[in-house]
Order: sequence, then structure tokens, then C-alpha cells
Amino acid sequence: MTLQAIGTVRSDFKEPTAERLGLKKIVAEIVIDPQLTEALEGLEGFSHVIVIYWLHCAVYDDKSLKTYPMGNTAPGLKGLFAVRTPKRPNPIGKTTVRLLERRGNILKVQGLDAIDGSPVLDIKPYIPGYDSAADATVPDWVNLGE
Amino acid sequence: MTLQAIGTVRSDFKEPTAERLGLKKIVAEIVIDPQLTEALEGLEGFSHVIVIYWLHCAVYDDKSLKTYPMGNTAPGLKGLFAVRTPKRPNPIGKTTVRLLERRGNILKVQGLDAIDGSPVLDIKPYIPGYDSAADATVPDWVNLGE
Repeated sequence: MTLQAIGTVRSDFKEPTAERLGLKKIVAEIVIDPQLTEALEGLEGFSHVIVIYWLHCAVYDDKSLKTYPMGNTAPGLKGLFAVRTPKRPNPIGKTTVRLLERRGNILKVQGLDAIDGSPVLDIKPYIPGYDSAADATVPDWVNLGE
Repeated sequence: MTLQAIGTVRSDFKEPTAERLGLKKIVAEIVIDPQLTEALEGLEGFSHVIVIYWLHCAVYDDKSLKTYPMGNTAPGLKGLFAVRTPKRPNPIGKTTVRLLERRGNILKVQGLDAIDGSPVLDIKPYIPGYDSAADATVPDWVNLGE
């Protein structure tokens, strides 16, 4: 299975950090390959979109399958699939963002915690009910932050 | 960018259909590579998880960048990134499911609209507020169904 970038993230967020949840307000741009501009038509009608991207800075020598959630040691080690660490067998990121504007092949979005230069793999419209779970619960060790 | 399957979907959903939204109640299993079982530890504390998978049946000769949403011609053609068609430049699927049970390397989930045999690429915990958008809106042409 091989992937091709459909675009690239342009952001002031330049370095990995454990504080990604603080990025809910950051405004960034997604520059889509101009040859794919037509595939964006109609997206501007949605308030939110889902960005699937490649975590290109996620290179780790460490092969362990557990980590501390958000760098917090208190809850103990958790499996990589139980946390949102970029250190994953397949370094795929998924973030729900607010779509502020589409200008041709450029999407201006809010809340994208992808590092500048991240290859974008897919853009999907956010569909309430399908993408959300109104009754979702998380374990006590998850700090939902602000 | 290359991917490796971390597991496989086992489901009674065997053929592609435009009626995926009707699959909210289907129960399926995700069989994760036993070598990665440790990476699932802690996931059982979440009520919902996000499944990222490969749309392995999504092979199209047609190279057009637009399609009819959910096979419905009434709204006209929309860009591939504005709909949830499996026909995407990178055939990556993303579904939020209810996690019913984890038994070792097997996740029993509800609402997974991936076809039987789909390679699974990633499992992420669903985090309300981060993955959801309470004020999200969609265009009139999106039929949210039931």
C-alpha cells in the first residue's frame, strides 16, 4: 500500500510538541495539488473537515509499543493505539478542523495540529453523527484539557 | 510513503454499497496483528475508537475528480474531497465506531462500514472535543439520513 501526497500543510507550528491540544486556535493553510482543485468543489459548504496527513517528523528508534499519554507519567504506560502519539506503526494523523475559507486549491483552517510541511493524504467533510459520538466516554487518565 | 497492515476487518459486510450510513448497527471484529497486542493496552477504557483502514475494493478506471454524493444525482456532481466516496486519490477510510469489547488482539466494534478483509492501518481512541465539533454544519445537499 503506497500513498501519494495530495497537498502540504503550511503552518507556524514547526516542531513536534506534546501540547498539541493547545493548538485548537492555530490557523494554518493546506495547499492542495492544483491538479486536484476540482476534487475540492463543494467542500466550502461544510463548517468542518477532517484532515488525514502523514506524521513526517515521527521517526523513532525506540520500537516499544507503549508510551506515556501526552508525556504524562502519572497514568503509567499505555498502548500506542490507546493514545494519540505520533509514534504509531503507520504514522497517519487525523485532525478535525474548522474550515475558514477555500480559495481555489488552498484551504484555510483552524485547529490543525500538523507540523509545517506535513504531506496531506486526504480531506473528508466532517459529518455530525457519522464522525461524532454524542455519548462517548474516555478513561479517567485522559486529560481533556481546556 | 508506504503502509503496513496492522490488522484486518472481519465483517458480514462483504460488498461495496452506497448505503453505508445504514451500517451504524453492524457488529464486526478487527483482528490486530498479535505482535501488536501490547499497543492496544488501555484502549478498552474508551467507549469509541477511530478506525483508519485501506479501502481495498476501491479500484476505479474512471479518473474524474467529481462524483454524485451517496449515488444521489439531485445535488449534482461534487468534488471527491467533499464527499465520503471510497473513490479517493488515497483510498483511506475513517470510521468512528463503538468499542464493544477487547479480547486480547481482537476488537469487537459496532458501526464499522469497512468491507470484510479490509486492511486496518491505525486505531485511535475517540476523544470528545478533539475529534468532534459541536457546532458543525453541513450543506443542504447532505442527507444525514436517520
